Amino acid sequence: MAKLIKNGTIVTATDRYQANVLIEDGIIQAIGRGLEEGDAEMIEAEGYLVFPGGVDPHTHLDMPFGGTVTADDFETGTMAAAFGGTTTVIDFCLTQKGVPLRQSIRTWHEKAKGKAVIDYGFHLMIGEMNEEVLAELPRIIVEEGITSLKVFMAYKNVFQADDGTLFRTLLAAKELGALVMVHAENGDVIDYLVRKALAEGNTDPIYHALTRPSEIEGEATGRAAKLAALANNARLYVVHVTCAEAVQQIAEARQMGFDVWGETCPQYLVLDQSSLELPDFEGAKYVWSPPLRERFHQEVLWNALKNGQLQTIGSDQCSFNFRGQKELGRGDFSKIPNGGPSIEDRFTILYSEGVTKGRISLNQFVELVSTRAAKLFGLFPQKGTIAVGSDADLVLFDPLAKRTLSIDTHHMNVDYNPFEGMSVTGEPVSVLSRGEFIVRDKQFVGRPGAGRYLKRGTYAAGSGGLLPGEDAVQL
Amino acid sequence: MAKLIKNGTIVTATDRYQANVLIEDGIIQAIGRGLEEGDAEMIEAEGYLVFPGGVDPHTHLDMPFGGTVTADDFETGTMAAAFGGTTTVIDFCLTQKGVPLRQSIRTWHEKAKGKAVIDYGFHLMIGEMNEEVLAELPRIIVEEGITSLKVFMAYKNVFQADDGTLFRTLLAAKELGALVMVHAENGDVIDYLVRKALAEGNTDPIYHALTRPSEIEGEATGRAAKLAALANNARLYVVHVTCAEAVQQIAEARQMGFDVWGETCPQYLVLDQSSLELPDFEGAKYVWSPPLRERFHQEVLWNALKNGQLQTIGSDQCSFNFRGQKELGRGDFSKIPNGGPSIEDRFTILYSEGVTKGRISLNQFVELVSTRAAKLFGLFPQKGTIAVGSDADLVLFDPLAKRTLSIDTHHMNVDYNPFEGMSVTGEPVSVLSRGEFIVRDKQFVGRPGAGRYLKRGTYAAGSGGLLPGEDAVQL
Amino acid sequence: MAKLIKNGTIVTATDRYQANVLIEDGIIQAIGRGLEEGDAEMIEAEGYLVFPGGVDPHTHLDMPFGGTVTADDFETGTMAAAFGGTTTVIDFCLTQKGVPLRQSIRTWHEKAKGKAVIDYGFHLMIGEMNEEVLAELPRIIVEEGITSLKVFMAYKNVFQADDGTLFRTLLAAKELGALVMVHAENGDVIDYLVRKALAEGNTDPIYHALTRPSEIEGEATGRAAKLAALANNARLYVVHVTCAEAVQQIAEARQMGFDVWGETCPQYLVLDQSSLELPDFEGAKYVWSPPLRERFHQEVLWNALKNGQLQTIGSDQCSFNFRGQKELGRGDFSKIPNGGPSIEDRFTILYSEGVTKGRISLNQFVELVSTRAAKLFGLFPQKGTIAVGSDADLVLFDPLAKRTLSIDTHHMNVDYNPFEGMSVTGEPVSVLSRGEFIVRDKQFVGRPGAGRYLKRGTYAAGSGGLLPGEDAVQL
Amino acid sequence: MAKLIKNGTIVTATDRYQANVLIEDGIIQAIGRGLEEGDAEMIEAEGYLVFPGGVDPHTHLDMPFGGTVTADDFETGTMAAAFGGTTTVIDFCLTQKGVPLRQSIRTWHEKAKGKAVIDYGFHLMIGEMNEEVLAELPRIIVEEGITSLKVFMAYKNVFQADDGTLFRTLLAAKELGALVMVHAENGDVIDYLVRKALAEGNTDPIYHALTRPSEIEGEATGRAAKLAALANNARLYVVHVTCAEAVQQIAEARQMGFDVWGETCPQYLVLDQSSLELPDFEGAKYVWSPPLRERFHQEVLWNALKNGQLQTIGSDQCSFNFRGQKELGRGDFSKIPNGGPSIEDRFTILYSEGVTKGRISLNQFVELVSTRAAKLFGLFPQKGTIAVGSDADLVLFDPLAKRTLSIDTHHMNVDYNPFEGMSVTGEPVSVLSRGEFIVRDKQFVGRPGAGRYLKRGTYAAGSGGLLPGEDAVQL
Repeated sequence: MAKLIKNGTIVTATDRYQANVLIEDGIIQAIGRGLEEGDAEMIEAEGYLVFPGGVDPHTHLDMPFGGTVTADDFETGTMAAAFGGTTTVIDFCLTQKGVPLRQSIRTWHEKAKGKAVIDYGFHLMIGEMNEEVLAELPRIIVEEGITSLKVFMAYKNVFQADDGTLFRTLLAAKELGALVMVHAENGDVIDYLVRKALAEGNTDPIYHALTRPSEIEGEATGRAAKLAALANNARLYVVHVTCAEAVQQIAEARQMGFDVWGETCPQYLVLDQSSLELPDFEGAKYVWSPPLRERFHQEVLWNALKNGQLQTIGSDQCSFNFRGQKELGRGDFSKIPNGGPSIEDRFTILYSEGVTKGRISLNQFVELVSTRAAKLFGLFPQKGTIAVGSDADLVLFDPLAKRTLSIDTHHMNVDYNPFEGMSVTGEPVSVLSRGEFIVRDKQFVGRPGAGRYLKRGTYAAGSGGLLPGEDAVQL
Repeated sequence: MAKLIKNGTIVTATDRYQANVLIEDGIIQAIGRGLEEGDAEMIEAEGYLVFPGGVDPHTHLDMPFGGTVTADDFETGTMAAAFGGTTTVIDFCLTQKGVPLRQSIRTWHEKAKGKAVIDYGFHLMIGEMNEEVLAELPRIIVEEGITSLKVFMAYKNVFQADDGTLFRTLLAAKELGALVMVHAENGDVIDYLVRKALAEGNTDPIYHALTRPSEIEGEATGRAAKLAALANNARLYVVHVTCAEAVQQIAEARQMGFDVWGETCPQYLVLDQSSLELPDFEGAKYVWSPPLRERFHQEVLWNALKNGQLQTIGSDQCSFNFRGQKELGRGDFSKIPNGGPSIEDRFTILYSEGVTKGRISLNQFVELVSTRAAKLFGLFPQKGTIAVGSDADLVLFDPLAKRTLSIDTHHMNVDYNPFEGMSVTGEPVSVLSRGEFIVRDKQFVGRPGAGRYLKRGTYAAGSGGLLPGEDAVQL
Repeated sequence: MAKLIKNGTIVTATDRYQANVLIEDGIIQAIGRGLEEGDAEMIEAEGYLVFPGGVDPHTHLDMPFGGTVTADDFETGTMAAAFGGTTTVIDFCLTQKGVPLRQSIRTWHEKAKGKAVIDYGFHLMIGEMNEEVLAELPRIIVEEGITSLKVFMAYKNVFQADDGTLFRTLLAAKELGALVMVHAENGDVIDYLVRKALAEGNTDPIYHALTRPSEIEGEATGRAAKLAALANNARLYVVHVTCAEAVQQIAEARQMGFDVWGETCPQYLVLDQSSLELPDFEGAKYVWSPPLRERFHQEVLWNALKNGQLQTIGSDQCSFNFRGQKELGRGDFSKIPNGGPSIEDRFTILYSEGVTKGRISLNQFVELVSTRAAKLFGLFPQKGTIAVGSDADLVLFDPLAKRTLSIDTHHMNVDYNPFEGMSVTGEPVSVLSRGEFIVRDKQFVGRPGAGRYLKRGTYAAGSGGLLPGEDAVQL
Repeated sequence: MAKLIKNGTIVTATDRYQANVLIEDGIIQAIGRGLEEGDAEMIEAEGYLVFPGGVDPHTHLDMPFGGTVTADDFETGTMAAAFGGTTTVIDFCLTQKGVPLRQSIRTWHEKAKGKAVIDYGFHLMIGEMNEEVLAELPRIIVEEGITSLKVFMAYKNVFQADDGTLFRTLLAAKELGALVMVHAENGDVIDYLVRKALAEGNTDPIYHALTRPSEIEGEATGRAAKLAALANNARLYVVHVTCAEAVQQIAEARQMGFDVWGETCPQYLVLDQSSLELPDFEGAKYVWSPPLRERFHQEVLWNALKNGQLQTIGSDQCSFNFRGQKELGRGDFSKIPNGGPSIEDRFTILYSEGVTKGRISLNQFVELVSTRAAKLFGLFPQKGTIAVGSDADLVLFDPLAKRTLSIDTHHMNVDYNPFEGMSVTGEPVSVLSRGEFIVRDKQFVGRPGAGRYLKRGTYAAGSGGLLPGEDAVQL
């Protein structure tokens, strides 16, 4: 049945205006004044901002790590995402050396199947580059619609790839119209610093931060950017940028005309390194990689979002319970599972800290939380905007609601909230995925398994088609 | 009568999709599939891109300069603009020291009245800053809706203001929610170089370029940016940026978080300094200030448009006939009236050289040619987008048309075209202003005097209203 | 009579070694082991560092300013300099518009005659540039040996020159082999900020600093550097650099290959803006222009000295008594005479804070305090080094002496010491000027009038002569 | 017997003056006018510049590489060095994984013993970092006087160390007062590019350059600088800098206050990449790593020498005959032995292209060719200057001699000269090592085996001793 969202203030990455939105078959059919049709369900949105659903380009659901598995899987994770205003996630499919990529992808499909509440896609980790991998890639990109490849420059002896692998991945991706994502930290240096700290008896969570200094995130970011430039200007996306040094490297590359993009995460915008010093091992809750930084980096990140040096916000959702999981690292910080839960609060934190505090505009908010990721990852215009023909993934957002982020109210399957006690302004009230309510008046009304796998477009093709004369979509 | 633009591909600064556009009372009423209403005029737009009408933030129509007056007035100039796809211009109202600002504004209203074919606003030149000027400003900004003030750092003894005036203007503008525009060249140095060149008998047009080196545009740009930063981060807009040095200064200021914006012009993107060396005094046709630069600057400008270091394209329309006007400078390049005609070709040149050559995306094109200027100058969302509630200023654009720019086909009232012979792809076929055709199938169907004066919003107020909690619109 | 300085550790900008120094006729005749001659006076220097006498490139002795005159004249000032280890000063000869330069120079000669205890030269202020000035310059540079011209970018309506004057001075200096010095602050902006502060009742000394922000020193420094570059790479020397912004501009210019040099002063290295907030108007003692800065700038300056972005240390000696002079500014900070006394402590502060704290090397100390200024200002190798044939201007320095800087022990004719109470390591014990003791075992044994005027060389000629093939001395 | 060098113009890194130099026991005893002693041999030096002997910090003599051995050993190599004005070399001692460092050092001592004509020291390659290496290092640094450690970031699977090894070497060196040298190119990327080129049939010498782009030299240089900074500001020395990208990274590190130093080589200053395209495989003569670059880099390097961003000139002497050695790479550029002969011409090329062309000053020449290397590598003041107490390593240099560099006149044991046909100004006429002529009037009069091994000082100790209060020598 058709729906008519009435009297909301529609906001896209460019526009802001009051109108009604007519939805049929899960698609936005029309936007305008009036538009009443006899049979459409009327949904009153007066006083609400109507945003395109958030696109979270960086999640790790149901992911094994360090002998345990993330607390949130595709069911609890996407449900929490939905409550938070996010209607699309792109999750990282891990791979193993010597194992066909297809096999890993199959595993990931199985993780999501029957569970996901919202639509989802996959990125693919590249841990080695050889003839077998090169042979598999074209079909994966085109047939599976996995158009982004992730290379780790850290996690030595686990995920870390050498520069030759990174460079070859960039060259291959450039040729195939895919994007390369990097986790940019110098793993060799970290490896030594961690071993040294432990040998010296420095085992507390704070040493997680002290053994991963921002300088080596900057170093690795610059290295990746230079290799991308050399690889015929391959498209590079730096995940979870945390610090001034890395922002500087991205800015320099972009200024020289290279297609380098950067993502940051809500935790780096509002939390800082001092949290790792909390007593009773509570610091372990704040162990992300890269780590939380000294406070002054926050302003650099906000400014980079404002000025377009960073372009997206990912959650890097990777939740582990404090009890039983984070605790694995008692007495050895290097055994604390890395990551934390922010899939649910990403959207509101960016709104509250960004828009209501005047750091970014309302349109920039939409760009950062939804549109740009959809464009970069080949989901646009199906996702990422409110436009005729797009999926009716919509968030009815109350811009005046005041609330407190907390384990008591969040929906993630994890026993703490890193933003516990934080006051925010703004709240997703109702959320639609392809025209169907999944959250209505703050109640979950969706269904596990309703989320669909998204084959994504290459940038050479675009999911929106090319214009006459275009041979690649400029982002 | 209502109109329905059917089957076009609508393009905004964010979106691209196929839909119909319903127009009533000059306003976009709805956008969608279907939308047929019995009484609406149907306009077939299949195969066309439907753009928001161009906003040209930089024109000099009917402007006295060096003892003569520009060849195009508000009638011929706006008619040519319309043919070119531009539906809004913001013209520069000159002022004189000791004369009340209101009086100059009145003069400018008279120039436009009964002539303008499209909607128009005014910027206001500030040549001195004193108690009288300060007293007049608040009402001009609020009541006249003139929310942008222009200061010249060049044209010594004519328009040039000193740094104290610039700084005070920035402070006042910051307080009043206005934007300050600068012509950034070091006028003192130019003055000496010009006198020296002439004294040495170097009188040909090329000396116009050689006496205004890019270094001093960079210098003045950086100076203005630093003064703006110091003035509590006043909003600064640098007009007609031509060179790498100036781009660098703007980029640095923005990277530090300052609200500095830059405009370039089509001439700087596609022409270069060698044109000033054309024989038979033809070089005079290419005398703009700042001057055309060496060719390598073009790539820097394109890259700056792509990466957001420059944000708008103005025409700097300021046309003088070669015969009788440019010729005033025979034997003394300093007497050549500065400026040229590009109001008509601005839109297509940016499309053809930018989009079809893969330098910018289609969305960036709209942002640059229309949306960003509308936002910066307080006209958004009335102008600058295709959204429900916005003025139906639309361009039906044939993206495949091939043509040649020429005096033979242009509509500007001037006896040469600086882009003569240039092949372009893309052509505005029909143009609507507030829902009425002014160009239809390449024929002028508008009416002098139909254009309305636009009172523009301050950025503190926004023309679209502020959100709860907002006290200034973030751009 | 000949002298033999025995067993000292000789230190130059390059070397450090133990040897004896034989002096005859005021000239260094030989350096070596042994060298005993029957008739030479033996002077034991074991345990002492033997430095070339300091060259202070920036003093204002007997200078009128704001209706008063500096407390130190050429007698007291140079005597204090001698105590402090400085054997050469270059003082600023002020000029007036419309008055022949020669006349001002004559005045300055009269100030020094019969008074100076050490050798001295003059810089010449350029306040206007016209045919008369241009006509005088060549003879002044060659015949008077005044090879450095100073232009003020601040002190509006007093000393300030416009950019045209600066640019023409740079062009003329380049042609004549002279160096241009600039006081780099944006005087227009300062003028407004000062008037505004006073109008708002902000009259305390701290407002001197608050109305001259570092940003506009950086701005003016960059402007001067860019104009110098444009003036065919004219040699530019930026006096009293105080802040990170200015250092950055100098570094950028040098990196591009331009001959831009920078000086800082002891006060900027060890004092900060908080001193201006001292109660009871004591802040007035710390009023220099540019003002003392926030503390973090100090590290930037030290680093710039270490890495060669700044090349000299001047005292900017310009002393006014607190009683009766600084007090002129009670109730109006703009009336506080600008400047302070540091001619005596310049040498030791740089040694103590620089060398003994490991910030610069011993050789760099000599380069900064003596050699580089001698080279830049055409006094080398007569001054600035310990080498055969050079003037025997020597300092026997006790590197272990501990003492406290104070009005109680200083020799300047001024009623306070801005470094009062500062503990330093190192002390000039004996000082020779052209082979004669002027300070011996901390007692003054010199004679007013013994100091000679120094005609300085142009860099095109060099005072040391050019090599075959050289047409200008590279610095 | 004593010697008296008469009437020469003595030039050091700071000074230039005419004087006599008295030498006894191989040491400079005195410098002065007169100084005649009855028994001293008189050597007339009128018209000559007297320089401290050159210090070449970068040679590979008798070095195995790619299955062959360099054409010059310690006898022919140091003899050629002497002819060229160089009196000290520091050669690279290669090591092997798993072999004690001492054993490799012993091998290197044997190579030099009985052969070296001039004094020499060793750098030590670090190919792995583990407990054994860490245990050996302190004694090697202190007892062997090998105070500089070299790490290769390139030559994958041969010399290349990973970032962990580099970082640990930096930490260890910092603690022990040693300097770390890096060959900065990204070996992983090169490895791939080389294999790719060969696979595509691109086997000519030019592909040596095309597979080692300057971007990755810049990348590796920046990486090394960042790791050094992170290693508590360890002292880093980047060998053979060739390009703008690397200079930029060094400049940035130095500007931030880090102790990063850079060396370039004569070949990069005067030759360019086009030489690799010479027909008949002649390009192989010009195969160095990093490779010769495009011509525009030369100006960047010269400017960096002038402004102190680069501080030394090494020859990187590593000669292979064209016949039989370079020819190993016919049909596979990767098999061409890397390196070339410049030990003899380093000194004169820098003089001729630097001083006589006005790019650097005479004092800078001495600093670059001798003094700075002596200081950085713990040989100062024994080597690197003309001062009382220093070794009498002197060059009598005719600044007016014109000659042509050629295989016909050079003394290196190799069958080509890469600078063949180049006209230069200036020639070493006579050369003394520790007071003995080794070249006299262009004839070799030295003796193989006369050269002594130099135990070098750590920077923490300095070879010249520390001042009271110093705990490390600032360079």
